Amino acid sequence: MITKIYRDLNPSPRLLLGPGPSTIHPRVLRAMAAPALGYLDPEFLALLDETVSLLRAVFQTQNEVTLPISGTGSAGMEAALCNFIEPGDRALVCVNGFFGQRMADMAGRYGAQVSQLEKPWGEVFTAAEIEAALQEQDYKLVALVQAETSTGALQPMERIGQIVHRQGALLVLDCVTSLGGAPVKVDEWEVDVAYSSSQKCLGCASGLAPLTVSPRGMAALKGRQSQVANWYLDLNGLLKYWGPERAYHHTVSCALIYGLRESLRLIIEEGLEARFARHRANAEQLWRGLEELDLTLQVPLAHRLPTLTTVRAPAGVDEGEVRARLRDEYNIEIAGGFGPLKGLIWRIGLMGFSSRRENVTLLLAALKEILAG
Amino acid sequence: MITKIYRDLNPSPRLLLGPGPSTIHPRVLRAMAAPALGYLDPEFLALLDETVSLLRAVFQTQNEVTLPISGTGSAGMEAALCNFIEPGDRALVCVNGFFGQRMADMAGRYGAQVSQLEKPWGEVFTAAEIEAALQEQDYKLVALVQAETSTGALQPMERIGQIVHRQGALLVLDCVTSLGGAPVKVDEWEVDVAYSSSQKCLGCASGLAPLTVSPRGMAALKGRQSQVANWYLDLNGLLKYWGPERAYHHTVSCALIYGLRESLRLIIEEGLEARFARHRANAEQLWRGLEELDLTLQVPLAHRLPTLTTVRAPAGVDEGEVRARLRDEYNIEIAGGFGPLKGLIWRIGLMGFSSRRENVTLLLAALKEILAG
Repeated sequence: MITKIYRDLNPSPRLLLGPGPSTIHPRVLRAMAAPALGYLDPEFLALLDETVSLLRAVFQTQNEVTLPISGTGSAGMEAALCNFIEPGDRALVCVNGFFGQRMADMAGRYGAQVSQLEKPWGEVFTAAEIEAALQEQDYKLVALVQAETSTGALQPMERIGQIVHRQGALLVLDCVTSLGGAPVKVDEWEVDVAYSSSQKCLGCASGLAPLTVSPRGMAALKGRQSQVANWYLDLNGLLKYWGPERAYHHTVSCALIYGLRESLRLIIEEGLEARFARHRANAEQLWRGLEELDLTLQVPLAHRLPTLTTVRAPAGVDEGEVRARLRDEYNIEIAGGFGPLKGLIWRIGLMGFSSRRENVTLLLAALKEILAG
Repeated sequence: MITKIYRDLNPSPRLLLGPGPSTIHPRVLRAMAAPALGYLDPEFLALLDETVSLLRAVFQTQNEVTLPISGTGSAGMEAALCNFIEPGDRALVCVNGFFGQRMADMAGRYGAQVSQLEKPWGEVFTAAEIEAALQEQDYKLVALVQAETSTGALQPMERIGQIVHRQGALLVLDCVTSLGGAPVKVDEWEVDVAYSSSQKCLGCASGLAPLTVSPRGMAALKGRQSQVANWYLDLNGLLKYWGPERAYHHTVSCALIYGLRESLRLIIEEGLEARFARHRANAEQLWRGLEELDLTLQVPLAHRLPTLTTVRAPAGVDEGEVRARLRDEYNIEIAGGFGPLKGLIWRIGLMGFSSRRENVTLLLAALKEILAG
């Protein structure tokens, strides 16, 4: 039936300096290749418990309900919304980039009356702006992106949790491009629902979306009048497996759990503060180097993500061709922009195992060679 | 913050003879450990194209819309329903086990008026029974499980597609425990939407759910009045990435795609017919051996799955203890029953790389030793 011969897998040794996936640490690759265990094997359940403990440490939370969703970061986003929205609920979604817009889209699918608090792509919200929006109208839920992968902006989190809670709403936070590379203080910031992805600063393969829910969030879930509209992401079902009952819900991926656990072990061995400092130092090195190449960084220093840098392509340069040359001649992946930033910027990730001094040096030197013609 | 030291990953070398995951072939494990590529890298896109071609061959279909959903088999089930159900649509769900019930649950969440055609767990439906149900009432969609993982029954597929189409409905088929181990003839059977999982007869890690949709299914999707209620599984969004546009939707897992592609390569190298014959021969060997141990097979030969065997635990034997001894003393995993079959049966999978003569011999010998006391 099939006559074509598919060749042996032999991927080029790419250095992944885009917005994710990041380069996977060899220890994580090896872990994923370990022989599988069944999803109810006591050995596997012990590994799940360890993974959850490690996730709590990285999320800086005591939340009992902490687990990796069996999907990518977007599934994490959807889990963070569909469990807490009932038809007719008012949701305030702060939109200053692509992923805020995606949250608004998702919240609408679950029947929320969505209000968008909008800012130009790349800017961030002040606590006062969110406070003013909440004074105009009551909301069940406020959704915010901490690290906007589309723009490279880092949302300051001071006071926001208190403001949202004073009004009785839940705070949902997208930490897809921050967790494991920049501080995510779920408890200190009073975040009710936070989610991330496995393939960025955590340094694992894509396919899992760590999620954590505060007791206040769980109370809202238990107080729902209607069934969660999404079966796969319904926390009531998921917690039958992730809780003490350990009842079958779906077949959690052993390979991905092995990988996530190993990537979390690497984080804890390094230490959260040391890891954040490494990400910051390598980012600063990159920023200096880009400026020395006369390139303009897109986001002001005060709100710049240490994990993903956006930089304007010089006028007259075909940014796509530069990326193609980086890929084809140097085996380096960086990304372009999308939405209003398409064709205008490069997005350079220094996340997890990709955040290394030698990678910064190589990228800058390669860019210099290419831009010199 | 964390003082506990988490030990190096060192899973016991389990032989996985339960309902999935199955033991992963060493070539698939190695593929998953290859260095990652970005999700827009031309090399990765070529691997996706190859994976889709291989999936079409295994599904025995020409369907253009064929892709692995980034979730487990249950996400595949939800994708197969949420894209084709609008609120108020009538759905006929054939329920003769746990997964038929799950389909009915999911269909209801998307607003379907669900009618359940029910049979005792372990029995199968005749085409005439489905025809009679369709004569009583018009339906938008008919959902059926080909291989019921909870019971071990194999649904015959003759005439069903024609009957469903004569009435103008779509046929949705669960192939989670058949694809890659028993014939799944999507085009010949006129199946409109079929889905499976990566970790059973395909022999890969869990985390992907192959899905294929007929032109008739796609026409129904395009004719929807309402938006698909689920963002992550909305085929309209997924096909922006999986189609020629190759636009970002979510970060497809490179490691899992590597693994799935390798597992599909193994299937095509072996040949579909040879693979089905191997699964059948090893299952027959198992059935003979179980009967020689005076055990009673749960499903009559005519409707018995070749990939998953259900067998009654002997009266007076603690079936859970037998499974624990198989696991702890022999490193073999088999599963128990659930629902009405909890405590009554064992479920023994011979799927993918787990379907080998030596595994049958070992399991039977180990069971004999344990049952002898």
